[in-house]
Amino acid sequence: MQAEIITIGDEILIGQIVDTNSAWIAQQLNSIGVRVKQISSISDDRQHIIQGLKEAEQRADIIIITGGLGPTKDDITKKTLAEYFNVGFKRDAATLEVVAGIFKRHNRPLLDINIRQADVPENCTVLLNKNGTAPGMWFENNGKIYVSMPGVPFEMMYLVEGEVMPRIKAHFNLEAIVHHTILTAGIGESFLAEAIASVEDALPAHIKLAYLPKLGQVRLRLSAYGQNEQILRDQIKIYVDEITALVGDFVVTSEDKPLEKAIMDFMKERNLTVAVAESCTGGFLSQLFTQHPGSSEVFMGGAVTYSNQLKQSVLGVPLNTLEQFGAVSEETVRAMALGALSNFEPDYSIAISGIAGPGGGTEEKPVGTVWVAVAGKRKVVTSKFQFGSRRQQNIERSAINALIMLFKLLKEEHV
Amino acid sequence: MQAEIITIGDEILIGQIVDTNSAWIAQQLNSIGVRVKQISSISDDRQHIIQGLKEAEQRADIIIITGGLGPTKDDITKKTLAEYFNVGFKRDAATLEVVAGIFKRHNRPLLDINIRQADVPENCTVLLNKNGTAPGMWFENNGKIYVSMPGVPFEMMYLVEGEVMPRIKAHFNLEAIVHHTILTAGIGESFLAEAIASVEDALPAHIKLAYLPKLGQVRLRLSAYGQNEQILRDQIKIYVDEITALVGDFVVTSEDKPLEKAIMDFMKERNLTVAVAESCTGGFLSQLFTQHPGSSEVFMGGAVTYSNQLKQSVLGVPLNTLEQFGAVSEETVRAMALGALSNFEPDYSIAISGIAGPGGGTEEKPVGTVWVAVAGKRKVVTSKFQFGSRRQQNIERSAINALIMLFKLLKEEHV
Repeated sequence: MQAEIITIGDEILIGQIVDTNSAWIAQQLNSIGVRVKQISSISDDRQHIIQGLKEAEQRADIIIITGGLGPTKDDITKKTLAEYFNVGFKRDAATLEVVAGIFKRHNRPLLDINIRQADVPENCTVLLNKNGTAPGMWFENNGKIYVSMPGVPFEMMYLVEGEVMPRIKAHFNLEAIVHHTILTAGIGESFLAEAIASVEDALPAHIKLAYLPKLGQVRLRLSAYGQNEQILRDQIKIYVDEITALVGDFVVTSEDKPLEKAIMDFMKERNLTVAVAESCTGGFLSQLFTQHPGSSEVFMGGAVTYSNQLKQSVLGVPLNTLEQFGAVSEETVRAMALGALSNFEPDYSIAISGIAGPGGGTEEKPVGTVWVAVAGKRKVVTSKFQFGSRRQQNIERSAINALIMLFKLLKEEHV
Repeated sequence: MQAEIITIGDEILIGQIVDTNSAWIAQQLNSIGVRVKQISSISDDRQHIIQGLKEAEQRADIIIITGGLGPTKDDITKKTLAEYFNVGFKRDAATLEVVAGIFKRHNRPLLDINIRQADVPENCTVLLNKNGTAPGMWFENNGKIYVSMPGVPFEMMYLVEGEVMPRIKAHFNLEAIVHHTILTAGIGESFLAEAIASVEDALPAHIKLAYLPKLGQVRLRLSAYGQNEQILRDQIKIYVDEITALVGDFVVTSEDKPLEKAIMDFMKERNLTVAVAESCTGGFLSQLFTQHPGSSEVFMGGAVTYSNQLKQSVLGVPLNTLEQFGAVSEETVRAMALGALSNFEPDYSIAISGIAGPGGGTEEKPVGTVWVAVAGKRKVVTSKFQFGSRRQQNIERSAINALIMLFKLLKEEHV
């Protein structure tokens, strides 16, 4: 079973936005055993859209299209699809209701161009978009499936999860696939591969192991392909247990969740709380925690002390520590972590101070120098990192490495 | 002059990585007046690569290929290109020198597969890659240009800037393209379209207008195509001015930058600072600011007061305000904003408290209820929003709407 993804819109082609939708859709399709043959970004141009559809349908069984469904004149996807399938339009009552509801909630008059958003090609099944005014559309034509969705990520995601995936699974008789992810941290990819070589070498042909390294973490993904899902699950469990027996010290979780979520789950089970004192990460670590529902049970909050003034007033870092050692120093992060511990009263605190760049580096402390402190009630651990020159990467690496330090301390103190 | 970008490699097709290379290359090409007709991600598969090249050369004059140039067997781009052009291989001395140097620096033996990285199709001009072992390659065939580069971003960027752009400029007599973006906030796409319909309808054929909506903002992008860049700039300026005259109240900036950056630039010019008190946005607003280099000149930091305890201890919100009105209330956000103003001493503060969901909603305050306060030294403005049920979207909308409120207050107080 093969699919292609087509993204319509000039903003990708002029490089104004990066196409993140396609990678996400590709992940979803892969998870149900549909391989993506090609991803194409094409222009808001009738002839180009038609050509793109023709090329894709020669290679794939499922063609997923995003973008080009807005109310304005430059959005021609819907019109072009109707032309492509040689059909007229029908007005979809459920979509009109959603559109009218959105305008009513915002106390705005329903214009004619908005009403026309409920018009869809006659041959489509509407995938009701409850989050926006552009409907999703499902077409079946000559044995191929075509899905058109808005390009707004959350609207598209909602439709893919709620409508597209279940319909694809139901429409095709797909082979079962079971994925299982083990998250490791603090061990490099090649060392990990060496440590689990015996398991990897003994895997049967229908079970594959992939290494997915990312910022100090390596995800191990086991994927089993076959007819019976339960048998695949049972088989995979054996290998997960074998891997855990070999490299358990580095295993953060054997569920498919991000590091910060695994840590929060670990802490929640033990009634522990955490607070942060962020300087160079500027809120990034906080939002890593708080993006997850229920994070308030573990994450109390904290301070983003970008200025030295706030490091003193909010965290109580002594002025002479800042003056003598600088904001990026072991002494300062230690004081920040202890200040967070006493002022915010969590069980653990994390403090990060560094030079994210591109400016602010010195010979002694070049861009990418980052100090992290993690404090519990019994112990404070500190660590210095030397990352690279890229700002966003330095921010992300700082946050992830701070989380790994917290996880190690948690494991030490709460087995 | 049209180009296509082809990315080769399975990691994009399985959604493991997002293709950021193509957007960057597209920006570079657009800046010299080369329009990108299509961006395609295809698999490491001989037949698929050949098909991709054939399709691209029908539409474009320049085909830029990245990826698939590693030393291992699954990287077949170079072999496939030689087959495509029906030529043999030659060994490139300069590339071999770079490869040997890299291995020498790392004290590693030079293996045969590494030496073969210096072998290139006979008909290519080598674009010397000083940062890695895979050379860039420039082909001219039947009046078309083909460029093959490694997929490692910084190696690719170095080759594009240093070799590819100058060669394309020298080889073609290029049409100019000028883009201009106007960022609007607080007005919906259809209202904006109605308001500027007279301008849009009067645009000449060589100037296009696109609407790029995103979370309470709409970007208007004017693109002009022609021979003389200065004439295009002058022409676009007329339409930018006409649009600004019609919807100026909603224009945040007529430069291509994000809302929070436009606000920081506005504040920096006026020596103003901002601090935040975030509850439901949990650090998201802070990291919006701090992702930008130089943000410390305007953004002082703030508090992520996820727990009520921190709202009291860090921001001084009175316990009886929390008890009487609740954490999500006008009274609480007002107290949070004023607390941030007095404790952190910025010129402006932003406070956000809401129910991001999925849990925590009540009949009176359902999920998606958010209160925002923006405080300056003269005035506090508050606003209640009722967003939807999606957590991340509620977080982002809260932050963006808080920024729009700040921007309005700034415009009012500092024309």
